[in-house]
Amino acid sequence: MDMINGGVTAAQGFEAAGAETGVKYKDRKDMAMIYSQVPCRQAGVFTTNVVKAAPVLWDKNVIDHSPFVQAVVINSGIANACTGVLGYECCKKTVECAAKELQIPADSVLVASTGVIGMQIPVEKILAGIEKLAVLKSPELEAGTMAAEAIMTTDTVSKEAAIQFEIDGKKVTVGGMCKGSGMIHPNMCTMLGFITTDIAISKELLQEALSTDVQDTFNMISVDGDTSTNDTLIVLANGMAGNEEITSKDDNYYKFLEALHIIDETLAKKMAGDGEGATALFETRVIHARTKKDAKALSKSVICSSLTKAAIFGHDANWGRILCALGYSGVHFDPEKIELYFEGENGRMLIYKDGAAVDYSEEEAAKILSEPEVRVLVDMKMGEYEACAWGCDLTYDYVKINADYRS
Amino acid sequence: MDMINGGVTAAQGFEAAGAETGVKYKDRKDMAMIYSQVPCRQAGVFTTNVVKAAPVLWDKNVIDHSPFVQAVVINSGIANACTGVLGYECCKKTVECAAKELQIPADSVLVASTGVIGMQIPVEKILAGIEKLAVLKSPELEAGTMAAEAIMTTDTVSKEAAIQFEIDGKKVTVGGMCKGSGMIHPNMCTMLGFITTDIAISKELLQEALSTDVQDTFNMISVDGDTSTNDTLIVLANGMAGNEEITSKDDNYYKFLEALHIIDETLAKKMAGDGEGATALFETRVIHARTKKDAKALSKSVICSSLTKAAIFGHDANWGRILCALGYSGVHFDPEKIELYFEGENGRMLIYKDGAAVDYSEEEAAKILSEPEVRVLVDMKMGEYEACAWGCDLTYDYVKINADYRS
Repeated sequence: MDMINGGVTAAQGFEAAGAETGVKYKDRKDMAMIYSQVPCRQAGVFTTNVVKAAPVLWDKNVIDHSPFVQAVVINSGIANACTGVLGYECCKKTVECAAKELQIPADSVLVASTGVIGMQIPVEKILAGIEKLAVLKSPELEAGTMAAEAIMTTDTVSKEAAIQFEIDGKKVTVGGMCKGSGMIHPNMCTMLGFITTDIAISKELLQEALSTDVQDTFNMISVDGDTSTNDTLIVLANGMAGNEEITSKDDNYYKFLEALHIIDETLAKKMAGDGEGATALFETRVIHARTKKDAKALSKSVICSSLTKAAIFGHDANWGRILCALGYSGVHFDPEKIELYFEGENGRMLIYKDGAAVDYSEEEAAKILSEPEVRVLVDMKMGEYEACAWGCDLTYDYVKINADYRS
Repeated sequence: MDMINGGVTAAQGFEAAGAETGVKYKDRKDMAMIYSQVPCRQAGVFTTNVVKAAPVLWDKNVIDHSPFVQAVVINSGIANACTGVLGYECCKKTVECAAKELQIPADSVLVASTGVIGMQIPVEKILAGIEKLAVLKSPELEAGTMAAEAIMTTDTVSKEAAIQFEIDGKKVTVGGMCKGSGMIHPNMCTMLGFITTDIAISKELLQEALSTDVQDTFNMISVDGDTSTNDTLIVLANGMAGNEEITSKDDNYYKFLEALHIIDETLAKKMAGDGEGATALFETRVIHARTKKDAKALSKSVICSSLTKAAIFGHDANWGRILCALGYSGVHFDPEKIELYFEGENGRMLIYKDGAAVDYSEEEAAKILSEPEVRVLVDMKMGEYEACAWGCDLTYDYVKINADYRS
C-alpha cells in the first residue's frame, strides 16, 4: 500500500471541478462536482440526526435504488436543511440540470450541501454553477484539489488523501476528500466526505466495507458534540482498474478494506485536527478495555470533554479532567487500577497509577501538550479491546467562529 | 409559600460559618461549616461518575448508616478526587477534628470538597480551619451568606435561597446554598448543594423527596457536559419547626415537596446562569412530548449544544442549531410538525413551523437573545409531557477560565 498525492481524481476515470458561484459568499469557491467517465457502484452512510437535510433524504434514495451513480454536485454555502418542500424541489432541479449538462440519467446524480441551516438555496445560482462545473471538470489531480477547496466552510485547509495497491496484478487507487469543521460529531459518518476508487466490487460489498469502516474512523471523531443534519459520506467505485469484480469476502476484499481504512482514518484525523478554532489534534487511545464498545465510549468521552479540550488549549496537564471524563462515560471500571500516559514525539510519560498521580514533571508534560498532536493513552487493564478517538482543543476561536457564524 | 431572605441558616437551629484558611488560595474564603443545634435526619444524592472523590465515598456511608447528622465541613480549594488512600485519610481526620471541636459524634459529620482534581489536601490547614469555623459559627442570616461565599470556586456570585410555609399551624423553613460553576452536568445532583430545614420528617421520606426532585431540577442543568467527580447535594432536617413528624405521603409531605422543589429549582437556575464565563441563563422548555423522558432528552440536548450556546453568546438567532440538537437527542419526531419559539420579556415569537422558518424579524429575535435569560419553547405536538432544562452561553471566558484553571 502506498500513499500517493491527490484526492477524488486520483483513481482512473474520475474528474472533478470547483468553482465560485456566489450561492452565499463572494470571492470564494462554493460549488464542486465529481464525475466518473463510466457508471459507478455507489455506497453511502448518512447522519442519524432525526432532522435530515433535503440532500440527505435525496441521496439515501439514490444510493439504495439507482442502478448506478455517475456524478455528485456539492455546494458549501447553504445546508438546505429545515427548508421544507422547497428544499427537496431544489435537489430535484439540481440533479435534472446536472443530468442534462453531463448527458447522464437523472437518477445517477447525487447532491450534497453544507452551510447554514434553515435558509433557502437560490436555485438559479446552483443551476448556473452546474453549467460552469460541467465545462471545468477535468481528471487532473489539481481538479480534485479545486473540488476539495470548494467544499470547505470554516475549514482552514482542504483535506485530501489517496492510496494505491495491487490486486491480481492490477493497480487499484482509492482517493477521497472531506470537509469539517464545526457541527462535527458524526453518527454514521461525517459532515461531507467523498471517496472515489477504480476498483471493481459489488454494490453490496462496497456498502458493507464503508459501513464497517466508518465505525472506527469517521464515527470516532468529534469537534463539538453536535451531530449535523447533513452528514454524508459517499464512495463511488467505477471498476476501471480492471480487476476481476470482488463479489465475496476474499483476500482482495480485505486488501480494499485496508486501503479504505487508511483513507478514512487519514481524512477523519485531518477533520478533527482542523476543527473550528483548533490549534491541535487531540487523540485518545484506550487499550485493554473489556469490550470494543467500552473502549470506544471511554476514548470518545475524553475527546468530547469541554474541560479537557480547554486544558489542552492551555497546554495544562490537568489530567484529573481526563479521569473525570472516563468516569462519566457510562463504562464501569476501577479507578485504582487504570494507568494514564501522555505520548509525545519523544516517547511515553506515565501520569497516573494506583489511584493517584505519580511524581511526573509538569514541565515535561506541558511540553508534550504543546505539540501539534496531543496523544493520551489509557490502559484499562481489564481485557483485550482497544479504540482510538480524535478531537481537538477548545479555543477562543471556536467561540468566535460560532458566536456569529451567519454574518 | 413565601420566598424569604437567607440560605442554610434560615431554618431554626442551624448555624454556619465561612473562613479563609489558605488550603489552596490566599485572601479568599475557602472553608465553610454547617452545624445544627440538634441532631438532623439526613438525605443525600451524589455523582454517578465512576471516579468518585473521597468525600463522596465518605458521605454515602454516613447518609446511609449514621443514626443522625449534625455538621458538614466543606472546602473549596482542592477536590480530594483521584487522591487514593491519602484522600480517604484526610476525610477521616477532618471529621474527627470537627467532632472534637463541636462535641458531636464523628459519624454525624459530613465532608464535601470541590476544586482541582488530583492534588492532595494539606490536612493541617483543614484542621486549623475547623477550629476557626467552630468558633465563628452563628445562626445569623449573614453567617449563612459567609458560608455560601466560602464554597465558591469560579462562581461570580454566591447562591442562596429560602422559603417559608405552614404545616398544621407551625412555621416551616427550607433554605439552601450551592456552588457551580464548571464541570457542571449533574447526574444525580450538582457540584455542591446544601439544604437545611426545620421540618420534622422521616429519613426515608426526606431521601425520597430529594431523590425525586433532583430529577427535574439539578439534573436538568448543564454548563459544559462534564459530570463532576464531586457532585453532592445534601438535605438536613432538624425537626425544630415542631410539626408532627411526616411519616406518610400526606398533604404535608407534598407541601414540603413543593417548597423543596422551589428551592432546588431556584438554586439550580442560579448555578446554570452563573456557569463559567456565562453572560446569560439559557432555558429550553419542551412541551407536548410523547413521554417525560423524551421531553427531558430533547430539552437537555438543546442546552448542551456547544454551537447553540455560542450562538446565544453572539445574540445570533441561529435556530437551525436548535433543530439540529433536537434531532440528535435520540428522540424520534417529525421535523415538519414541531414549532419553535423564542420567549422574551415582551412575549413569545414564532420562529419555525411546518418544516421551515416563518417570516420573523431578525432584529426582534436578536433583541430577545440579548436578554439575561434566553428562553426557547419547543412544541412537539405529540403528547402530554413537558420538561425544562437550564444552561448558559459558551463564551471566550469559559475557554479562558479552563485553559489554565490550575494556575
